[in-house]
Amino acid sequence: MDKSTQYKIFNDPIHGFITVPKGVILDLIDHPYVQRLRRIKQMGLGYLVFPAAEHSRFSHALGAMELAQRTLNNLREKDTTISPAEYEGTLIAVLLHDIGHGPFSHTLEFSLIEDFHHEMMTLAIMRQLNQKMNGALDTAIKIFTDQYPKKPFLNQLISSQLDIDRLDYLKRDSVFTSVYEGSVGIERILKTMRVYKGNIVIEKKGIYSIENYILARRLMYMQVYLHKTVLSADKLLHKIFHRVRVLIEDGYNLYQASPALQFFMENNPSAKRGVSTEVMQKYLQLDDNDVYQSIKYWQHTDDLILSDLCRRFQSRSLFRTTFLDGQPTKELQEKVSIKTQKVLKERGLPHDETTAQYYYSFDESYSEAYRYENEGIWILEEKDKAVEFSKAADTQNIIALTQPVVKPYVVHLKTIDVKE
Amino acid sequence: MDKSTQYKIFNDPIHGFITVPKGVILDLIDHPYVQRLRRIKQMGLGYLVFPAAEHSRFSHALGAMELAQRTLNNLREKDTTISPAEYEGTLIAVLLHDIGHGPFSHTLEFSLIEDFHHEMMTLAIMRQLNQKMNGALDTAIKIFTDQYPKKPFLNQLISSQLDIDRLDYLKRDSVFTSVYEGSVGIERILKTMRVYKGNIVIEKKGIYSIENYILARRLMYMQVYLHKTVLSADKLLHKIFHRVRVLIEDGYNLYQASPALQFFMENNPSAKRGVSTEVMQKYLQLDDNDVYQSIKYWQHTDDLILSDLCRRFQSRSLFRTTFLDGQPTKELQEKVSIKTQKVLKERGLPHDETTAQYYYSFDESYSEAYRYENEGIWILEEKDKAVEFSKAADTQNIIALTQPVVKPYVVHLKTIDVKE
Amino acid sequence: MDKSTQYKIFNDPIHGFITVPKGVILDLIDHPYVQRLRRIKQMGLGYLVFPAAEHSRFSHALGAMELAQRTLNNLREKDTTISPAEYEGTLIAVLLHDIGHGPFSHTLEFSLIEDFHHEMMTLAIMRQLNQKMNGALDTAIKIFTDQYPKKPFLNQLISSQLDIDRLDYLKRDSVFTSVYEGSVGIERILKTMRVYKGNIVIEKKGIYSIENYILARRLMYMQVYLHKTVLSADKLLHKIFHRVRVLIEDGYNLYQASPALQFFMENNPSAKRGVSTEVMQKYLQLDDNDVYQSIKYWQHTDDLILSDLCRRFQSRSLFRTTFLDGQPTKELQEKVSIKTQKVLKERGLPHDETTAQYYYSFDESYSEAYRYENEGIWILEEKDKAVEFSKAADTQNIIALTQPVVKPYVVHLKTIDVKE
Amino acid sequence: MDKSTQYKIFNDPIHGFITVPKGVILDLIDHPYVQRLRRIKQMGLGYLVFPAAEHSRFSHALGAMELAQRTLNNLREKDTTISPAEYEGTLIAVLLHDIGHGPFSHTLEFSLIEDFHHEMMTLAIMRQLNQKMNGALDTAIKIFTDQYPKKPFLNQLISSQLDIDRLDYLKRDSVFTSVYEGSVGIERILKTMRVYKGNIVIEKKGIYSIENYILARRLMYMQVYLHKTVLSADKLLHKIFHRVRVLIEDGYNLYQASPALQFFMENNPSAKRGVSTEVMQKYLQLDDNDVYQSIKYWQHTDDLILSDLCRRFQSRSLFRTTFLDGQPTKELQEKVSIKTQKVLKERGLPHDETTAQYYYSFDESYSEAYRYENEGIWILEEKDKAVEFSKAADTQNIIALTQPVVKPYVVHLKTIDVKE
Repeated sequence: MDKSTQYKIFNDPIHGFITVPKGVILDLIDHPYVQRLRRIKQMGLGYLVFPAAEHSRFSHALGAMELAQRTLNNLREKDTTISPAEYEGTLIAVLLHDIGHGPFSHTLEFSLIEDFHHEMMTLAIMRQLNQKMNGALDTAIKIFTDQYPKKPFLNQLISSQLDIDRLDYLKRDSVFTSVYEGSVGIERILKTMRVYKGNIVIEKKGIYSIENYILARRLMYMQVYLHKTVLSADKLLHKIFHRVRVLIEDGYNLYQASPALQFFMENNPSAKRGVSTEVMQKYLQLDDNDVYQSIKYWQHTDDLILSDLCRRFQSRSLFRTTFLDGQPTKELQEKVSIKTQKVLKERGLPHDETTAQYYYSFDESYSEAYRYENEGIWILEEKDKAVEFSKAADTQNIIALTQPVVKPYVVHLKTIDVKE
Repeated sequence: MDKSTQYKIFNDPIHGFITVPKGVILDLIDHPYVQRLRRIKQMGLGYLVFPAAEHSRFSHALGAMELAQRTLNNLREKDTTISPAEYEGTLIAVLLHDIGHGPFSHTLEFSLIEDFHHEMMTLAIMRQLNQKMNGALDTAIKIFTDQYPKKPFLNQLISSQLDIDRLDYLKRDSVFTSVYEGSVGIERILKTMRVYKGNIVIEKKGIYSIENYILARRLMYMQVYLHKTVLSADKLLHKIFHRVRVLIEDGYNLYQASPALQFFMENNPSAKRGVSTEVMQKYLQLDDNDVYQSIKYWQHTDDLILSDLCRRFQSRSLFRTTFLDGQPTKELQEKVSIKTQKVLKERGLPHDETTAQYYYSFDESYSEAYRYENEGIWILEEKDKAVEFSKAADTQNIIALTQPVVKPYVVHLKTIDVKE
Repeated sequence: MDKSTQYKIFNDPIHGFITVPKGVILDLIDHPYVQRLRRIKQMGLGYLVFPAAEHSRFSHALGAMELAQRTLNNLREKDTTISPAEYEGTLIAVLLHDIGHGPFSHTLEFSLIEDFHHEMMTLAIMRQLNQKMNGALDTAIKIFTDQYPKKPFLNQLISSQLDIDRLDYLKRDSVFTSVYEGSVGIERILKTMRVYKGNIVIEKKGIYSIENYILARRLMYMQVYLHKTVLSADKLLHKIFHRVRVLIEDGYNLYQASPALQFFMENNPSAKRGVSTEVMQKYLQLDDNDVYQSIKYWQHTDDLILSDLCRRFQSRSLFRTTFLDGQPTKELQEKVSIKTQKVLKERGLPHDETTAQYYYSFDESYSEAYRYENEGIWILEEKDKAVEFSKAADTQNIIALTQPVVKPYVVHLKTIDVKE
Repeated sequence: MDKSTQYKIFNDPIHGFITVPKGVILDLIDHPYVQRLRRIKQMGLGYLVFPAAEHSRFSHALGAMELAQRTLNNLREKDTTISPAEYEGTLIAVLLHDIGHGPFSHTLEFSLIEDFHHEMMTLAIMRQLNQKMNGALDTAIKIFTDQYPKKPFLNQLISSQLDIDRLDYLKRDSVFTSVYEGSVGIERILKTMRVYKGNIVIEKKGIYSIENYILARRLMYMQVYLHKTVLSADKLLHKIFHRVRVLIEDGYNLYQASPALQFFMENNPSAKRGVSTEVMQKYLQLDDNDVYQSIKYWQHTDDLILSDLCRRFQSRSLFRTTFLDGQPTKELQEKVSIKTQKVLKERGLPHDETTAQYYYSFDESYSEAYRYENEGIWILEEKDKAVEFSKAADTQNIIALTQPVVKPYVVHLKTIDVKE
């Protein structure tokens, strides 16, 4: 039987063909835990601004796995020894790296589970899968947790400043948002990657590709991930779930389109001391649809605030985001509160100070294109000399551009002018 | 105020920029009826085969509207008079042309409403919107129903062998499925389109673009829309809903994640004498999520057949499709039934003849790349002579390739070999 | 030393990266005979219609070699044994397959050498290179001439209805001319190619890619290679060289920008009994520049006809092409001749019947998208059954579209209307 | 007659369609002075490193003219008044902006004419064309020379830190070199460009596109225009022409494939006091072919140095470039000279100190991605406040990355190691 029968091939607009090895990997892909990622959008509410950014975490996971294959094949070409078990383990770890994400990730995860870290959930799920599959994920788990001996580069492919996750999602998101300036030259980066003393390094000739990669990442944060309207949509969703929790605590009987979501709203579990099997099982039943179905029906609930917020969500009547020149003053916060109360009153909605807080929010956006301390990208300058990227020739100043960018902002009703 | 402030611009991977005129059109886009299209995938279950084909009817509707603008601008360049009201009316008609579609369109619509035609629903919805918006859709409705006087070309842009709907979805679907061979040269087609005696024609130099368009459409049917696995996934979904209906008729009490879906399952409305307002309102609450949520929970129902079918759906354990050389014989049908019963028995599932029918299906796929009788594409061969495409020079034989293609097939359990 | 150091990598807009094995292949690429292809445009005068189609035979040769590598790697994946010598031999044969082409290939070759076949010249050059390189091309030559035993598929990759040459130039030309409808899904074709009983076949699932490939080829002929203006530019070039030959035979002393071209013009060699070493050496000094330099200076020669033709060439004042409904009648030919003479007289140019022939030409264009007799493309329908493409299911009618297309035409002065 | 008949449409892989207005602009395009740009490569010897970068100055000029149209149409949409004469004048100025370039521009221009500036030549040619065309270029010349009153933005489109020339060539060169990281989001830049107080500004939302544009430009310099091998090829060409001049001064009788080139080699004209008509006429006969033809035949000349250098050029046996850590010391220069002499001796070539200088060269590369003093790009931060880009929010640090980069290097024989 020839090798080509050992693969299943999928089409992908980003990578052309995705080659899935039959066996453990194809079994995992068809597992309901992974199929669930089809029902979680990669970019959360980003599609409200970029209408075609409707792609799921599933297609990203598949794409990342394909990139992992290309990377490992390239490294083998450069005489790095990678055993079949290591190869498969890395693919599995990449495929499952985001499996612990819930619907609307960062926006909602903390509303569901206190002290949540998606890596913790990912690991718990991987371990359960490993048990069911008789240890087939042993190596993958070791690589994922950086316990795999002697070959730190395998973990670096999963999680580092230049990991495969980022390469796939930057490229994928830039295509689907049509922000081509955020596009990354993956092929060239892979071609110049190699292993040096057990670690991933980039050959000197790839230095400008790395510069471009970091700046593309910066641009995607500025233009896409932290886009004003995305920030405001996230806040709206957040406020909806805050309201739901309050109502439930007050003993209010909400229609529940989703038993799984109901579980989290009512029980308010914490992950401080790990994730129980029950919580994990419920969590694995959640996807974007639970949220959408609930909001669709909460439009018609008789709590005026919740129904108003949900109707806004359904008709894209979002709040406005205004960036601030510095941390908000007390005066500003009061002004926004009072103005909001006034508008709510005009509209016949509850309008006390507490209610008003469902209609505005002060926060700050944060992005960091590249973190060079402790975990930077290394350039192989000469045969036997690797230096951290920001110290390599020609680019000393790039650090300036990759400083964390923190922008305070306020999300508020569109009819309010926070600056006057 | 300059013209650029009269538009809102969206990014689109297919067309680059989508320019949405503020006013009626932007209001319609933000209307919950149109926003609902965000939750209905353009290609239904196609993403099970083409993982990135996750795009919604919403982004298609937006893309088509953009193409309509480009088309109308081009026609104006060629001295065709199009009034602002006609311009807006055409855009609205294109934007809303698919609004009557429900989740999984052709696969499920008939399970929801008897004698359903999505055009009928589209029109009913357009009329309700028109009422609410004080006649703002008057012209759009006339164009959509081909009642607009003297300018038949406007309706032809909405619905013909070369309408804007097709141009957008062929291009969009070919990109997201990464079947680039199905890609259409939209730009060139638009450049060579003009109005002749009130009808859309293509200038002679565009003849090969039309040939390419028709053959691309043929290819998309063969490779994508009627892909074996897509056919089998459709059948599985169909069987699930058939089972649900049977259970409900038997008085079975199913968990209902969706009140809207419950309405259709229990009431079984018919569209023979039109669509009632109640039916329309319920219908407008439906989207893909109702189906996905329901199936997710029906996995755990205690009807063995329904839960088995739903589990198959969730883990992509689909049936197999085998194309047949001709119409299936009685013998074949019996053979498949008996083999299916045997497998079901082995698996401890109900396995009588009726039950077996949930696990196989005989049907035929149908496609027609180009219909030239009555409604063909016309080529402007000379200054004053238009001929139907298939009669234009060089391409007499193309008709051969555009004959309807009918392929009988059977969908069945993977462990069964229908040919032995 | 790792494998990656055994390659030199070039960038290519068509294939991304081109990987050139160091050793014989890189030596060949840097050989002046191959570098000469940089100075011969792949599409001859096509850039006069498609301004960016300025790419050379060199970049095509490099691209084809890259495709050959991908093809051979794919075949090896499918368990076809290909020795290192066969691998290298195939690459060399693909790289050099067009080395026998001269400037403006088909347009000019016959003006240079009587009874010319570029394959004959290619072989002669390969043999000389082989001699200089101590037999390094032995296998390549055997493959090129189909003398390589037991593995006919290697030759089929060089020369067949689906050879690598075609795959590269169709794709490349379609990109540079921006006629995307002529684009070919190379990746998919390669993925479905395999060896069956020693011959190249396409797996059944690739059948629509083949249909698309054949129709893309047809479209490129119709839209690009046989474009009206390309035909007319070719004729102008041809007429210029005809005039030069006549002048030289009359003993006229032309300024010669190119000693190599002068040799061919004065000696009029024939290839009937093969190519002498002298002729080959002179031929290898020729490239597009010899022609352009000569025409640039012949603008200022005192032969009125030659200088007029050359000035037309330099300012793109081309003739017009009119397609005819059938073979031209004697009357038509006379009419064109008389009208031409009249125009020349008005312009103060020589205007007898013979002179007029420099200003018009009757000819016919010919294209054949697919030749199925004797040398068709084979589809592997079942595990042990290959059928010729036109006989494979679903596509019986494709033959109609792939019939040779013959179109009589006349090239003439723009001020003349041949139809009135 | 409708508007579409007033244009001629060309295909372009970069911009899709290029629309050429008939009349003056089409006449100019068909003029031999502009057609000559077809025979001058945009990237000079860049194709020796990037094999597909074979595009000409002609296709760039056409592409830039298309961009000028799109820009002006966009500005008109934003209520900037642009008269038909200004529109045409700008298009002409953009089309002709590079007409004064000779073969291999910066590499060779100074070898041809002392004190040469291509802008001076461009202007001289525009003036002559204007005279021949009865003042049709009056407005274009005023715009080009920044003499056009009240609308400085027209000249800024021709020549500034964000001119149309740069937008087209960066995009075009990045595609043909396949260095996609250097790609520029032209569409987005044009969409956010507007006129403010007579000057071009970028709307605030376009600020990241500008950042991306500047960094893409930086990358193209680093990766492409100042690529090591490009630098070394340029030096080789330079050395060849230096040798030719020396030989001619010594009275050596070289075969001359090009009378025009011969004129420059023998007369050594200077542009200090302007360009004479004779020099301009000769110059307009020059293109890349004169250089290639000459080098091809000089391979066989009996001057050992010239023939060796020319043979290197033909077989791409280039020198090597080594970047230096600082300005070269005297010791280094001597060491390189002595090592070179030694190698030349071994090869039986003349090997005195003067001869050796044909085989090495010390120089420095220079690039400046963005010059903000006096002529920066302005961002419209608020309705009535424009600030220079480097001072606009979020990007204060970008200046660091756009400092001029100066890199000393030495070009030398490959067998020499300059660092040991």
